[in-house]
Amino acid sequence: MNVTCHGRARHYRTVAFDAARNSVLLIEQRLLPHEFRIVAMPDFRQTARAIADMVVRGAPAIAATAAYGLAQGARAFRGRGLPDFQRHVDTVYQTLKAARPTAVDPVNAMNQVRRAMDAAETIAEQQALALAAAEDFANEDVRHCEAIGRHGARLIRNGMKVLTHCNAGWLACVDIGTATAPLYAAQARGKKFHVFCDETRPRSQGATLTAWELAQQGISHQIIADNAAGHLMQRGQVDLVIVGSDRTLGRTGEVANKIGTYTKAVLAHRHGIPFYVAIPLSTIDWKLGSGLAIPIEERHPSEVLGAWGVVSTAAAADARRAPRVTRHLSPLRAYVRVANPTSRVFNPGFDVTPAELITGIITPLGIFKPKELWARRHDLGGPG
Amino acid sequence: MNVTCHGRARHYRTVAFDAARNSVLLIEQRLLPHEFRIVAMPDFRQTARAIADMVVRGAPAIAATAAYGLAQGARAFRGRGLPDFQRHVDTVYQTLKAARPTAVDPVNAMNQVRRAMDAAETIAEQQALALAAAEDFANEDVRHCEAIGRHGARLIRNGMKVLTHCNAGWLACVDIGTATAPLYAAQARGKKFHVFCDETRPRSQGATLTAWELAQQGISHQIIADNAAGHLMQRGQVDLVIVGSDRTLGRTGEVANKIGTYTKAVLAHRHGIPFYVAIPLSTIDWKLGSGLAIPIEERHPSEVLGAWGVVSTAAAADARRAPRVTRHLSPLRAYVRVANPTSRVFNPGFDVTPAELITGIITPLGIFKPKELWARRHDLGGPG
Repeated sequence: MNVTCHGRARHYRTVAFDAARNSVLLIEQRLLPHEFRIVAMPDFRQTARAIADMVVRGAPAIAATAAYGLAQGARAFRGRGLPDFQRHVDTVYQTLKAARPTAVDPVNAMNQVRRAMDAAETIAEQQALALAAAEDFANEDVRHCEAIGRHGARLIRNGMKVLTHCNAGWLACVDIGTATAPLYAAQARGKKFHVFCDETRPRSQGATLTAWELAQQGISHQIIADNAAGHLMQRGQVDLVIVGSDRTLGRTGEVANKIGTYTKAVLAHRHGIPFYVAIPLSTIDWKLGSGLAIPIEERHPSEVLGAWGVVSTAAAADARRAPRVTRHLSPLRAYVRVANPTSRVFNPGFDVTPAELITGIITPLGIFKPKELWARRHDLGGPG
Repeated sequence: MNVTCHGRARHYRTVAFDAARNSVLLIEQRLLPHEFRIVAMPDFRQTARAIADMVVRGAPAIAATAAYGLAQGARAFRGRGLPDFQRHVDTVYQTLKAARPTAVDPVNAMNQVRRAMDAAETIAEQQALALAAAEDFANEDVRHCEAIGRHGARLIRNGMKVLTHCNAGWLACVDIGTATAPLYAAQARGKKFHVFCDETRPRSQGATLTAWELAQQGISHQIIADNAAGHLMQRGQVDLVIVGSDRTLGRTGEVANKIGTYTKAVLAHRHGIPFYVAIPLSTIDWKLGSGLAIPIEERHPSEVLGAWGVVSTAAAADARRAPRVTRHLSPLRAYVRVANPTSRVFNPGFDVTPAELITGIITPLGIFKPKELWARRHDLGGPG
């Protein structure tokens, strides 16, 4: 999407590839919303490290990063002979896989690249096919997000107020995003609307990433504390809710997403407000038969006990001139402890929203009722 | 309640008076939970400033502070003659009233002190009566909180998990608190239970004040992000919700309280979890006929855009040794900006919970259904 720097808007993808320099290009997301910077990863080990250190996050974005990283590693091979090349590619694969060991999307993406490479017999041909397959993977992600936007934009009418939670935006994908795709598509069609971004404690992805995205795109929006959504709905200030999904159960229509999603769904249901979930097909889990079986990751207490931010704008301006900023994270990013230090914390990362609270699921193939997913499993890439 | 310093528990009130030094003693709440300190206000102007600067907050606590401040000012009179004394007392009254101009509790408390003073004719007698009346006011607040605790403790059974929101604790009152009173009373009766404290963004009073209180009292508890309450209820981890109230409508049973209260009430209702509101009688508004008529204060955007905290424990220890800490607020308290700086914010301070979502209202006189308040208005201090 577009990013405006010094008054000029320019188009960027979250993940891209510089073939001439054999570098993976990433938006350094840990600096957002305080600073926008593209970082170039010059070799596959640094690409893996960028995934591990969360320079890039979001399942589709890290999948594309891993696909590019595999092509990057294959293209950097300086040895001789196919057996050596294959051993090298395997090292690259394992290194990238280990960067986020529980994520399944990077593995699926890299398998797609490897299958493409198998069609050729020379090293040079395999290297070329690897990059082409990685580009295909990234472009397909963009096309899917565009399709989600096309279907979802029909839900947005002029003057509407839309609530979002967390960030299932273009920063989580190669471009455009899932939950944000209908917003960008509606804007492109000339519709006027307003977005409320839940700040999404404890990691505040709504206040940092989604709000930054919407600001770059010039979409009218306000950040709210997560506590304020109920009040807004009660006063008739929300017409539509769109969220993303980390895992969608194809058999039951249940949706696991960022903690707090369930609460918004309950509130929307009470107020008769349509509640939609936008998903890429890769998040559909066709196996699990109950949301209770979805493991809910418990995250570090420090997320709840405090907050990360920048200390002041003046200090940030100074630091930008300091040479160490180019080597490390901005030094004025600080963690402050807010809460009572002797208290324990319960910090679940996700919750599960039942199908009955979900008006529709926006997929690249159209909008479905959650209970329709199973019947449409052949179209949606499900089991036979 | 008890505060443990260096391994020793000692009893403190949030607001107290040192008659020998004619000083109002306050817990410096802006330092909590990072540092516990009692500050002595040596004259009424500093007492007024402590109210204005939120050294002390919470309607019952600032009411008692104003009552003591009026007595303090009256006792400091060094002139001659009743007319001069009365002019002086009026200056004290106006100064304390101006400290929190929209709050009604300090004015009511000071009026109570002035009525008591009217019974005497000499300056010395009036000074003595002023202090006695302020002490009466503070002691009555404590007795009311004890009574709320006595009634509310019956709701808490062994093994229960209780959810709270914000801080209607002893730090908001002279002692004991309202929403926390049932917890402390149940603990005193030997009951074992666990409390989940909503962190209560954007000001985080749950994570800072309530969690600190419960830790001091040795009550088992965990802090959660506001987003996690729905997930906990869905998984059967909450048996009871108790919150406070800023304004309770005697005619309708609606409750205005900290933003997010309504959301917890909707969630509790969906899951069949009892939802109680603990109130002192002074928060009942007998005039308004609809919650929609309650003005909802919009607070500063900076609350949502960032967070206040301390930078690190090591730094805090250093600072405690530095001489300036004794003069000012701890220098390592820092505000970090978390959110996208170019985004707008909507930051309502309160929301309104309808009577149908409230199981009962815990008052010093017993527990009532919200719709019962009006019928019981003669007992509850309502209109004739």
